[in-house]
Amino acid sequence: MITLNSPLDMHLHLRDDDMLKIVAPLSSQDFAGAVVMPNLVPPVATIEDVKAYRDRIEKAIGNDDFEPFMTLFFKKEYDYNFLKEAKKYIKSIKLYPAGITTNSEGGVSQIDTDELKETLNAMSELQIPLCIHGESNGFVMDREKEFIPVYETLAKAFPNLKIIMEHITTKDSVDALKKYDNLYATITLHHLLITLDDVAGGLLQPHLFCKPIAKRPEDREALLNIALSGDKKVMFGSDSAPHPKSSKEAPGCAAGVFTAPIILPKLVELFDSHRKLDNLQAFISDNAREIYNLIPLKKDITLKKEEWEVPSDYDGVVPMFAGEKLEWRVI
Amino acid sequence: MITLNSPLDMHLHLRDDDMLKIVAPLSSQDFAGAVVMPNLVPPVATIEDVKAYRDRIEKAIGNDDFEPFMTLFFKKEYDYNFLKEAKKYIKSIKLYPAGITTNSEGGVSQIDTDELKETLNAMSELQIPLCIHGESNGFVMDREKEFIPVYETLAKAFPNLKIIMEHITTKDSVDALKKYDNLYATITLHHLLITLDDVAGGLLQPHLFCKPIAKRPEDREALLNIALSGDKKVMFGSDSAPHPKSSKEAPGCAAGVFTAPIILPKLVELFDSHRKLDNLQAFISDNAREIYNLIPLKKDITLKKEEWEVPSDYDGVVPMFAGEKLEWRVI
Repeated sequence: MITLNSPLDMHLHLRDDDMLKIVAPLSSQDFAGAVVMPNLVPPVATIEDVKAYRDRIEKAIGNDDFEPFMTLFFKKEYDYNFLKEAKKYIKSIKLYPAGITTNSEGGVSQIDTDELKETLNAMSELQIPLCIHGESNGFVMDREKEFIPVYETLAKAFPNLKIIMEHITTKDSVDALKKYDNLYATITLHHLLITLDDVAGGLLQPHLFCKPIAKRPEDREALLNIALSGDKKVMFGSDSAPHPKSSKEAPGCAAGVFTAPIILPKLVELFDSHRKLDNLQAFISDNAREIYNLIPLKKDITLKKEEWEVPSDYDGVVPMFAGEKLEWRVI
Repeated sequence: MITLNSPLDMHLHLRDDDMLKIVAPLSSQDFAGAVVMPNLVPPVATIEDVKAYRDRIEKAIGNDDFEPFMTLFFKKEYDYNFLKEAKKYIKSIKLYPAGITTNSEGGVSQIDTDELKETLNAMSELQIPLCIHGESNGFVMDREKEFIPVYETLAKAFPNLKIIMEHITTKDSVDALKKYDNLYATITLHHLLITLDDVAGGLLQPHLFCKPIAKRPEDREALLNIALSGDKKVMFGSDSAPHPKSSKEAPGCAAGVFTAPIILPKLVELFDSHRKLDNLQAFISDNAREIYNLIPLKKDITLKKEEWEVPSDYDGVVPMFAGEKLEWRVI
């Protein structure tokens, strides 16, 4: 048995409409809160959007035992007054380079420090963290590495801005993270478990296809080392990204791994197998509280070593480890 | 208009049974001959297998206007006497590292020069080329590079053996090829056109998933340069590898791109766009004749600049460029 205090998922896609109704309860039952990404169509970019989306999420969950940490889709037009008001409703702002992932077409096409200065200075002053999907438009295996200079420029130009490198997947990002006090990162479950070999090294596995794409064995090793260490600069963010089975198992398969229902069992198994269970509380909650300066809902989640089989799908959404047996279960 | 004399496909998968009937006519109508790979289940590993498979191929084609160049699945048990007899029926022998691609489970698990000596010396003496699927069991992007020392060891140990590096995909292989007189290579159409970005850089495209996986932009560039130059050490080998649509558009998607019906139009377009049409005859036929020391059937294939639309599938097998318009057509 192991009990986690107020586990937090600091990077989650809850989608909208029917998909929201399928996936939101699966996160809310295992977590005390989650940072909800704003890449809907159209993106969540006004205070009204945030409030309305939060209402839809709460309705889909049906209880107040889970807190959605709302985010705004970064726009360089956001000024101090807007952000001051927005801060009552959001926990962070997410910046997407244009066209880099699902529904990011309205993102920022060039990261120009000068152009973003007013907004980023206001965010620094108001202590609103900036979450970034850090990929260039380059070759798929190089995109994250190519984006690192942008992180470094921003970290130096805005030393009081907390910058979250979202879903890092490379050793280079782990190294960059350590160099700047105001850089932090989320790490997904799947990037701790898989490499490109699992996606395309044997037969092709569309349900493991995601952005950023899983990288090399030495990259996974670096992610695993920093996550298992409980290092205060990294926190768990699942990037659980549901797509209907029909859009995953077809040409033009959408990017995203749906991990929400199996996160805690697999994280416990992983940390336990490396004899690092003592550091899981930091990775799954405590580090996030400090980085985001938040006090989560009090919610204890207990897991027991008891085998269960992951369903083949949840209303047409195929989870990671579908049909496989897991060692730990949430009770 | 352009006329190609006796185009040859020096690496082709014709499969068996119903699939053979679907795909064989598509290659035979555009080519004078093709090296037919022996990775059936069970593999083509006896003279009787070769003769019977050749009969089935000829029956599927239904005319004598195309010559299947038969191959044996490499076994270290093949001795001089066997090979001397086999040579009447085959053009080369294909070596697969065990488990590296479709139906290669019966391949060689360790490439031990000493252990293979008798067979490879006999092949040298009998002038039977050795075709190799050159990949290690390592990380998917490194497998070809990791295999290069094996090519080099073999090239040095058996200087009179013609060794064909099949379907090379990397700059490293192009460089290695140039270092040894007895190393040659086939290059596919798809590896001249795509990189990993086309497979997994945007949405995931299972019909472009193949082994070896498409690599980096600089790798494609190196392949393109040597192919377009007409260099005598490289020849065209499509590795056209049909799989039913149902096994491509599903989790556990099989590796292989089905290019047979669109090869010549796309090669003409490619060489033409680089103003290298004059070198296509070397790449598509003349180099292969010298490397394999063969005289192909006389067969002129003419292409005309006339738009046509590639069918969405050929009896359930989806070709590369399905549903797209091509500039050149075979008349």
